[in-house]
Amino acid sequence: MPDVLDTSVFVHPTAVCESTTVGEGTRVWAFAHVMDGAVIGRRCNICDHVFIESGARLGDGVTVKNQAMVWEGVTVEDHAFVGPGVMFTNDHYPRSRRMAAVAARYAHKENWLLPTTVRRGATIGAGAIVLCGLTIGRYASVGAGAVVTRDVPDHRVVVGNPTRIAGWACYCGVPLNGTLHCPQCARRFKMSGDTLVEAG
Amino acid sequence: MPDVLDTSVFVHPTAVCESTTVGEGTRVWAFAHVMDGAVIGRRCNICDHVFIESGARLGDGVTVKNQAMVWEGVTVEDHAFVGPGVMFTNDHYPRSRRMAAVAARYAHKENWLLPTTVRRGATIGAGAIVLCGLTIGRYASVGAGAVVTRDVPDHRVVVGNPTRIAGWACYCGVPLNGTLHCPQCARRFKMSGDTLVEAG
Amino acid sequence: MPDVLDTSVFVHPTAVCESTTVGEGTRVWAFAHVMDGAVIGRRCNICDHVFIESGARLGDGVTVKNQAMVWEGVTVEDHAFVGPGVMFTNDHYPRSRRMAAVAARYAHKENWLLPTTVRRGATIGAGAIVLCGLTIGRYASVGAGAVVTRDVPDHRVVVGNPTRIAGWACYCGVPLNGTLHCPQCARRFKMSGDTLVEAG
Repeated sequence: MPDVLDTSVFVHPTAVCESTTVGEGTRVWAFAHVMDGAVIGRRCNICDHVFIESGARLGDGVTVKNQAMVWEGVTVEDHAFVGPGVMFTNDHYPRSRRMAAVAARYAHKENWLLPTTVRRGATIGAGAIVLCGLTIGRYASVGAGAVVTRDVPDHRVVVGNPTRIAGWACYCGVPLNGTLHCPQCARRFKMSGDTLVEAG
Repeated sequence: MPDVLDTSVFVHPTAVCESTTVGEGTRVWAFAHVMDGAVIGRRCNICDHVFIESGARLGDGVTVKNQAMVWEGVTVEDHAFVGPGVMFTNDHYPRSRRMAAVAARYAHKENWLLPTTVRRGATIGAGAIVLCGLTIGRYASVGAGAVVTRDVPDHRVVVGNPTRIAGWACYCGVPLNGTLHCPQCARRFKMSGDTLVEAG
Repeated sequence: MPDVLDTSVFVHPTAVCESTTVGEGTRVWAFAHVMDGAVIGRRCNICDHVFIESGARLGDGVTVKNQAMVWEGVTVEDHAFVGPGVMFTNDHYPRSRRMAAVAARYAHKENWLLPTTVRRGATIGAGAIVLCGLTIGRYASVGAGAVVTRDVPDHRVVVGNPTRIAGWACYCGVPLNGTLHCPQCARRFKMSGDTLVEAG
């Protein structure tokens, strides 16, 4: 991508967008801050008061609702939904870096930085907190207020602090019924081993 | 209300207040954003970094503490307290709207938008998350960090994720003792069926 | 401290820093608001969208990550880490102050304001909520998403809503193993009664 923002990118007058790697049609709303070096795809919607740090990567069509914070080390794939106030993390044992006792640990990123990936089409509900070194699977759905402490398989619904499994989600986000049909869009699924796959 | 803000409305120089339906004496603080079409009563206090969306409705004397987010579909009645970082929701199954699989569901608001009401004088504690389609009763009190998954009756105290009942709250917010007296303001209550009513 | 900011203090152009009691080398980042009367030590890092209220006190070398809110009554000692979205509280029973039923309670601060102290070198993880009237001990570590409902002893690790004890943390933040050694920095500890102390 070029060194200037695509003219189709909208940046609200109160927002700070320092990144020049923002795809066409993306919108950055009030009081949001996208740091230099953050990579943002096309047609994303970055809502008010969001923070996206250098080194974070978002695919195309990602929605990042108000106040969500996306740090270095976090990758969000196409069409994922990052809910309002969602907090990622990238360090299991954070301390203030001004403290001598942690100088050695923070001297090298490999000592503390753990990546997290949100796969295509997944949802992270309002106010959920995602510990680091994890993967949220494709079309998975993390409930509002959940604290995600382990990987979430594709299409899985998880809720609670710490998260527990609560069902399966369709592509459209609606929970599947007991026969793995979606009451919203009529898609049918079946199990293939431990994996949910679309049927027929 | 007229098309311009009442002169008694205070809007901090860094705030964005696009609504013209804001009652007299209301104050909007730093980095807050009140969207066009949000209806705000009189003498409300809208604190820093708050977001109030088009279609949200606040009564008179409502306190909305820092960073709270109030969406379309949410109604907050007079004198309620919306704590810092409180997150409402208005969609049980959010997905990124850029995804083809959800185009049908998001084509009509009645497919996804669920309203929430916070009744007069209720408190929602810091960082609580309120799922949608719910009512928080009059003078109820939701504990800090709670995830509200069902209706909260009038005067009820609820805490936890998901919420569980933890007692009764007086008008003044203080929990009632075992004989339904308020140790703070000396009001007395009694049960009338399942309902708490003031005694004498 | 003088009535003007030390020239070594950095305030981002979008931030609002009304306090003049900010120590040398402290940085205040985008959309943060430090109120007049907040006392901030030296070499602190106050990140985006943070709010620090009049009457809050921070020591030296404190990290306050994005969106954290630090109220009047909260004291954060040297080198503590206040994670992203951390919410303190200072009132057990908040109500909207516009309500007549609470006028008496809010007439005097001693009726409602409860102080909280975060001791030297402690960590409060992302999105944790800290009830008031509490002390988070030296080098303690509060897990992401925890709701802190009681004091946390020095070096203790706590997690969950409400918090439960989950181990011991080294000065460097890493959990101690079963023999109270730190796998990261090789420090050794031992118990002295209920207290963890460094061994030799």
